[in-house]
Formats: sequence, C-alpha cells, structure tokens
Amino acid sequence: MTERSLLSDQALRSQGQPISRLMAMALENPDLISLAAGFVDNETLPVDETLETCREILGDPQAGRAALQYGTTQGYPPLREELLRRYTEREGLDACDLGLTPDDVVVTSGSQQLLFLIASVLIDPGDIVLLPRPSYFVYMSTLAVFGARVVGIDIDAGGMRADRLEARLCELDDAGELGRVKLAYVCSYFDNPTGLTIPDARRRELIDVVARWRDRQRFYLLEDAAYRDLAYDAAADARSLKTFDGRNELAILTGTFSKPLAPGLKTGYGFLPRSLVGPVLTQKGSHDFGSSNFCQHLIHRLLASGRMDAHVRGLCETYRRKRDAMLETLEDEFAGVEGIEWTRPGGGLYVWLTLPEGIDTDIDGSLFRRCVDAGVIYVPGRFCYLAEPGYQAPANRMRLSFGVPTIDENREGVRRLAEALGEELA
Amino acid sequence: MTERSLLSDQALRSQGQPISRLMAMALENPDLISLAAGFVDNETLPVDETLETCREILGDPQAGRAALQYGTTQGYPPLREELLRRYTEREGLDACDLGLTPDDVVVTSGSQQLLFLIASVLIDPGDIVLLPRPSYFVYMSTLAVFGARVVGIDIDAGGMRADRLEARLCELDDAGELGRVKLAYVCSYFDNPTGLTIPDARRRELIDVVARWRDRQRFYLLEDAAYRDLAYDAAADARSLKTFDGRNELAILTGTFSKPLAPGLKTGYGFLPRSLVGPVLTQKGSHDFGSSNFCQHLIHRLLASGRMDAHVRGLCETYRRKRDAMLETLEDEFAGVEGIEWTRPGGGLYVWLTLPEGIDTDIDGSLFRRCVDAGVIYVPGRFCYLAEPGYQAPANRMRLSFGVPTIDENREGVRRLAEALGEELA
Repeated sequence: MTERSLLSDQALRSQGQPISRLMAMALENPDLISLAAGFVDNETLPVDETLETCREILGDPQAGRAALQYGTTQGYPPLREELLRRYTEREGLDACDLGLTPDDVVVTSGSQQLLFLIASVLIDPGDIVLLPRPSYFVYMSTLAVFGARVVGIDIDAGGMRADRLEARLCELDDAGELGRVKLAYVCSYFDNPTGLTIPDARRRELIDVVARWRDRQRFYLLEDAAYRDLAYDAAADARSLKTFDGRNELAILTGTFSKPLAPGLKTGYGFLPRSLVGPVLTQKGSHDFGSSNFCQHLIHRLLASGRMDAHVRGLCETYRRKRDAMLETLEDEFAGVEGIEWTRPGGGLYVWLTLPEGIDTDIDGSLFRRCVDAGVIYVPGRFCYLAEPGYQAPANRMRLSFGVPTIDENREGVRRLAEALGEELA
Repeated sequence: MTERSLLSDQALRSQGQPISRLMAMALENPDLISLAAGFVDNETLPVDETLETCREILGDPQAGRAALQYGTTQGYPPLREELLRRYTEREGLDACDLGLTPDDVVVTSGSQQLLFLIASVLIDPGDIVLLPRPSYFVYMSTLAVFGARVVGIDIDAGGMRADRLEARLCELDDAGELGRVKLAYVCSYFDNPTGLTIPDARRRELIDVVARWRDRQRFYLLEDAAYRDLAYDAAADARSLKTFDGRNELAILTGTFSKPLAPGLKTGYGFLPRSLVGPVLTQKGSHDFGSSNFCQHLIHRLLASGRMDAHVRGLCETYRRKRDAMLETLEDEFAGVEGIEWTRPGGGLYVWLTLPEGIDTDIDGSLFRRCVDAGVIYVPGRFCYLAEPGYQAPANRMRLSFGVPTIDENREGVRRLAEALGEELA
C-alpha cells in the first residue's frame, strides 16, 4: 500500500489568506480603525435600487421565472451584450475593431472566480506568471494553488516596467524557461496595493512586449480592471490595455460588480481571447454550470435602467472625499519628513506608503505592535511580495485603504499611524 | 525551450458534458418532447415568495446592506444554523449525537461546486473513486478534471451493493492500490439516473464497510442528497446515510436548493467531517471568497418564514402527478412486454428504463434516431457508465425525466418512445 497524504497536492499547496489575521483583529477590537480591509463602504450599498429592480423582475411572472431558472455556464446573454456595449462605448471604439463579440464575454462569481479559472486552464506546477512587485496578495495565493512559479517585475510610477518585463523574458529565454511563461498580470487602474494607474504609453509598451514574443511563446497579458469604475478625478481614466489588442489574441480583461455595486451579488466578468473561452467554460461547467442567474438578471437591469450609473456617481463622490481626507492627513503628518512618501491615487481604494529605510512594517514587528496599541492597523507591504530567490522585498512599505473608515476615521487612523511611527523613530 | 501545450493538464483532461448535445437538440426543435433534461419545471418557480422575501430584506436598510455586503467564505451563519437545525429535526436526532455543529456546514454555489471542491482537495491523478454503475454523469466529468480513476460498483434494487463494495476494496488491497482510494459516491435518494433510494439497512452496511477499512485507508462516503426534498410518497424518505456516522468522520452529505426551490439562486450546502472543512474552505477562498451573500440571505429567510416548506409541498404535488403520468403510460405501453422493465421512484425526477437485450439506446444508434423522428429524446444509458477496463456497460438502458414536460407531454413522450421502439423491434 502506497503511503500518501489524504489530501491532494493542490490542497497541500493552498494556504489561507494572510490578511484573515488582520480581519480577525479588527472584528475582535471594534475600537481599532482598520486601514487594512479593502472592503466596500457599508453605507453606500444600493439597497433601494436593488429592491426596485427585484420588484421589476419578480413583479412580472415571466421575467421572474427566467431569473429563478437555470442560466447558461457562460452567463446571461443580455448581460454579456450590455457589458460589451458599455465597454466599447467608454473606449469610443467598435466591438469589431477589437475583435470582440458577446461570445468572448464570460460572467463569473466575482472576478476572483475568473482569475481562478484562467489560472486553472493555463498553469501546471512550475509554469511561470510575471507579476509586478508589489502585487495583489489574493492573486498570489490563487497562483500558489496551481504551483505557479512567480517572477517579479519591478514597477515605477507608471506600474509594471515594460523594459524590465522584456529583460526578464530574455533571461527566461536564455535559461531555457520561456516555454513555461503563461501569463503576465497587472491591476491596471488604481492598482491594489499601490493605487497607481498605468499610463496609456506604458500600456502600449506592455502589449507590444507580449506581441513581440508571441511567435516564440504564446502567453497572455491579464488586465485586472476591478477598480476602473471607482475614478474620482476627471483625468483618472485611461484606455483599457485590452484595446491595444485589436485581434483579441493577447490580452484578457477582468472586471467586477463587487467594488462599484455590491459584493453580495458576487458577479464579475471578463473579455477573453477566443482560444481561452472554451477551456474556461469547460472548467466553469465543472465548477457550477454558471453563476447565480438571479444575480445576473438583477445586474443586467441595474445597468440597463441607469440605476447602476447613478449609484456609481454617488459612490465615487463618497470615496473621493475619503481619499482626500486620507491624503490631506498624510500631508499634514508627513510632508517634508525625510524618507516618507506615498502615492496619490486618482481612484480605487488604496494608498501605498513608503517609510524611512530601516523601518519594518511586518505584522510581527514593533511598528505594527505600536499601531495596534495606538488603535490602527494596515496591510504590511510584505504581504504583497512573493518570496523569490535572490530578491529582498522592501520591509518599509504598507497599504492603506480609505474606503471603509469614515472621513473622521481616515483622519484619526493616519494620525494614530503617525504617532506610532514617531515612537518607532524616537 | 520546452515544447508544452498552452493549456494545463487539468484543462486537457476536462471535457464538455455529453448531455449538451441533447440540450441543443431540444432547443433547436421545439416540437421535440425532451425526456432528457433534469431541469426544474418552469411554472413552479417561486416568483411571489422570492419577491415577498426581497421586500422583507431590502425594505429594511440594515438587513438589506448586510445582504449586499461581502459574506464569509463558509457561508451566512444563520443559514448554516438553520440547515443543521432542519436536518436534525427531520432525522429526530440531536446535532451533538451526530458530532455536527454549524462549523461543519459549508454553503456553496450549488452542490456542484461542493462536489468539485471535495474532489479538488482529495484527488490527485490516479486516485480512486468508487461509483455505482450507473452514475450521475456530470459527477463523472468532474472527477475526470482531476484525473481520478473510477472503479464501478454494481447496484441492485437497493442501489450500490455493500458486498460488491467490500469485494472491490479487497481486490484493490491485493493489487496494492488501497492507498489511492479517496471517495465512494452515492446519490442516496431518488438516484440520478436510476430513481432508486437506498434502504436503511443498506445505508448502514455501506457505512460499516467504510468504517471497517478506516484503519487501513481513510476514505469518505459521499452522500449526494440533491433530490431528498422531492419525495412524493409517504414512505419515500429514509434516514440520511450521514446519520450512521455518529462522530462525523466517515461521511459527507451534500444538498441543494436548485431542485426544491430555484436553480437561479445557485445555492447548495454540505455537512463535512471536520478534517475536510479547512481544506475545502481554503480552496473555496481561492475560488470566490464565498457564494452570493444576497442569495444566501434570501434562502435563509425563505426557510425561516416557512415559505420554502409551503413551496416544496406544492412542488411535490406537481411532480407526483407528472411521475404518475409517466409511470401509468409506461404501464399502458410496456406491461408484459418481454425484457422491458423500469424503476418506480418514490420521488426525484428520473425513471430508469431497461429495454430488451440487443437494443442499443446510444445517441448514434437507430433507436435514438427513430425517437428524434418520432419527436422525443431521452438520455442514453451509456452516458451514465464510465469506460472501465474489462467492463462492458449495458447498451439497452435509458434515463427518462418527467419533471419538465407537462402531464400530457409525459404521456405523449412515452407513447412516441413506444412507437419508435416498436419500429426498432419490428
């Protein structure tokens, strides 16, 4: 009898989320101001709009039954059409110029499920994913499930550097590992964790790198646009990376309704190169035969009625004020302090703070302890860097989220952080 | 550069559902009576009950926001408590006598997602799952994703035979393969595809087999109870297999709201041995951080208000009449015909029909073609048997579903089938 673990290799590779320890802390101590969680402001949730929409759908027996019945694995067709229509309208382009049809749109249980599905159809243990340093930590855990090898690409103020991406591909080619490269991932708008948006010129450069290597190795650029709808400044939007992929071959776009509408409806979506649609749907068929049809009907009508757009306008106004409160307080507390700098995001939920060299923000370090004592928590930057051989992740970064705390809590949270840092530096 | 497929091994192992060809046929030809699909009767869907429940939840801003916010990966705690309470009440047992707490309950996107998650945490390629012959074909596809080796166990009128299960385990032990056994699967109530319910005595025998082998090899008995709520005869219920597992170590129970309530709410659940809860939740965290919280709040209130129970009573009455129409017409057409027999399910959606030896029901055979010409389709029995070396699956079986067609269509569908069979036998 072979000695084997009861659990599969996949289960043994999978870890819990490091952030769950932070979430538990916040729950246990209601006086703590959490600048850690990237959740949605509870007060903004569209209760009335959803009730109105439920009434419309369920007040009509035929529409009601259609919403309560099985849907398709790919997603409710009118929702997929509406998603594509809105995308092309926003970009000022025709769907056919982008090589996109509603058959290239897939609706999933949040965009997280789509990130999981894409990894599952592309990645065998040892396959390579190129990630910016730092990156969205939940996605790093997802990649760990499949045994992906993560290769970090340095960023600058424009996000992932295209020259570094190119250089890495050359190195991997020299090492005979190019054939293992499957994906390059970026969070292209108001990045989690840095808050940065990739400018148009950089977007084109990144796509050009993928296109140039395509004959040697077919891999995809994954554009996670989860925060795009949360834009607070007039000039904050940018062309989607996917628009530079006019034949729908190189880039994947993922989006979600969790951040701009309601996480409880658990609905995300993506635009996929045709070659990936079939494999992703086969996997999704095995997962669940399609996401909640009722939630998809709700979201379709929230979009088509204009209620979603009105909601997003109000939501952005709320978050803009919170962002301003956090940025103003950071300015008040840290302006001119040697070695401290932070990003000024045009949208999203996150500010990335760099402290003086020598400060360690990690959860087991003295600064974090001082912060808990002062009544504030943050996400240690370490969570956002994967262990890579030969790479020493910076210890002095942190992610601050302004979405959940009130305006006053944002101000007070930053003040407590400054107080704890003052003690640490003393 | 290594030559590798773009797609992962998992994607390459995954196939589409054979039944999708049948579904497409039915869609293309509305005059066809489909006795193939195991869908839910559209007219029965609880539109008014769901609207009433939406009004209650969303009419209260606090309850509404809680439903639209993120939930937990494991599922809405009041729903998990209610599920456990109803289960123990139905069984007339205390939760503590079953070793169960709400922490052992997991809520998923339909029970299909839970079947997938359980497979993902237990099965590496080559691991063994013991399945009845015949079995639920969607589950066989799920197992194929993970490269499971399926070993068939013969059934009789009481479902999976415990003596054959025991004999198979002895054979696998002799072959040095016992360490690869991870699961034995049964659909314990109104089985898909046979309609059979496992009697109490057999349930105990099956659990006893798992318990006896436990010191040698830890594997689980998976009880898929998807159809339990659809019971049409007073005596049709049986004790859940899981109740024979008093320490919550040997058996997994899965259930769903898709069949008794609404597939569009895409909510299922399971009671899991404690050792599996953590690994399953870690995987589910990577899939989606939890299923739609809004749908879970809806279902909790549909249960707690008694609306679900009232709905199920009416639904069972509808399906009972359809079942009777199908069984009566089978009697009218086939009673006394040599070599033809069928099951008489006490609930669920399926009748399993055996035709005379020599008849081939497969989708590419002449009987299927005659049936399409006559205007009726069924699920060929072949779909419900996996290829196993040295085993010749019977060719003369079919699954008939009575849930979707009207009473008249059930009668007419069986008549058309009899007509096609008459031609085939002539």
